[in-house]
Amino acid sequence: MFSTEPHLFHQAIPVEEIRYDERGLIAAIVQDYLDGTVLMMAWMNRESLQKTLETGETWFWSRSRQELWHKGRTSGHIQKLKSIRYDCDSDALLIGVEQIGDIACHTGERSCFHQVDGKIQPPPADTLSQVFQVICDRRDHPTESSYTCKLFAGGDNKILKKIGEESAEVVMAFKDDEPESIAGEVADLLYHTLVALAHHQVDLKAVYRKLQERRS
Amino acid sequence: MFSTEPHLFHQAIPVEEIRYDERGLIAAIVQDYLDGTVLMMAWMNRESLQKTLETGETWFWSRSRQELWHKGRTSGHIQKLKSIRYDCDSDALLIGVEQIGDIACHTGERSCFHQVDGKIQPPPADTLSQVFQVICDRRDHPTESSYTCKLFAGGDNKILKKIGEESAEVVMAFKDDEPESIAGEVADLLYHTLVALAHHQVDLKAVYRKLQERRS
Repeated sequence: MFSTEPHLFHQAIPVEEIRYDERGLIAAIVQDYLDGTVLMMAWMNRESLQKTLETGETWFWSRSRQELWHKGRTSGHIQKLKSIRYDCDSDALLIGVEQIGDIACHTGERSCFHQVDGKIQPPPADTLSQVFQVICDRRDHPTESSYTCKLFAGGDNKILKKIGEESAEVVMAFKDDEPESIAGEVADLLYHTLVALAHHQVDLKAVYRKLQERRS
Repeated sequence: MFSTEPHLFHQAIPVEEIRYDERGLIAAIVQDYLDGTVLMMAWMNRESLQKTLETGETWFWSRSRQELWHKGRTSGHIQKLKSIRYDCDSDALLIGVEQIGDIACHTGERSCFHQVDGKIQPPPADTLSQVFQVICDRRDHPTESSYTCKLFAGGDNKILKKIGEESAEVVMAFKDDEPESIAGEVADLLYHTLVALAHHQVDLKAVYRKLQERRS
């Protein structure tokens, strides 16, 4: 959907209009192109932005080492450019990437924003991905009282029967043209579909990739 | 799902460990809690972070005006805190918000990152939201050759019949336990469900809200 040939990125950014701060730097927010997760924030100077646009992979400026830094060169966790934006006052960049290895942080976590109150937690993504994470967690750490765990315990036939049921309810809600009930029934259908994906160990990202492929 | 009482936010951030730069500032990335859209990047000093945590609404430090700034005070477009994270070296914040009015930028656009090559474009969000935007655009600007437009032209019965068909195909793919086919069929079901939502003018965000409510 948003894959662009590297040579086209130059057109997305009017390089000469970018405003660097007094250190010659601009903040670059790096975002996963599939689920919207913010993976990291780093700094670019003119040269690293130029190299990013030319190579289609992210390059930053390391303030501590005072040198250009090709993200993932040693770890293999490079970031392939999918989109690049600048903000309304041209002093911040938003970079959509495919994160190779799904690890952006030097700690081995997916995102640099992985701590809440000192505990490791998945970074915020879109609602569907967040719900999917919770469902996978219930699958891996079952508790008796959880409805989701009861579905897993019932296996394929119990889960898939719900998809049949919920899709019929979705159709009826649309026929009734009731916005509240439509939103609720679609939420139910999505939830049970996510449970089936988790039960079959298929990642929601595989579904997102299919949707992106069809658009490109 | 991630709504927390304001007084609990203090626990999420070890305020004394936050590292401000030589100007006493830290970059704050503001993200929509529903679809992962990055709405803006702004700066906080110690006092604005403190006020943000205390009030459950975002406060920043304006570098140009050199003053504290309660986001949305004049426009009404305040941001309600839903989550707050800091990164692995404690020098950037990631703030999940409910954006009142769904407008974060002073230009009236939803996100400050709204330009690509000088043209206004919706900011990158999760895949499903991006596909939904494209579908709504097809609805509002139909072209004859588009499959999506043919679905809209066929009306409710044509669209809803596809939901019935696709949900049956989803069930069969799960029964066959073929990951590739599961991902493809779920993508088809999601796509046609989005078309039905667009046809009935129900926003995908209404569905996301339902999913969030059920988790909290």
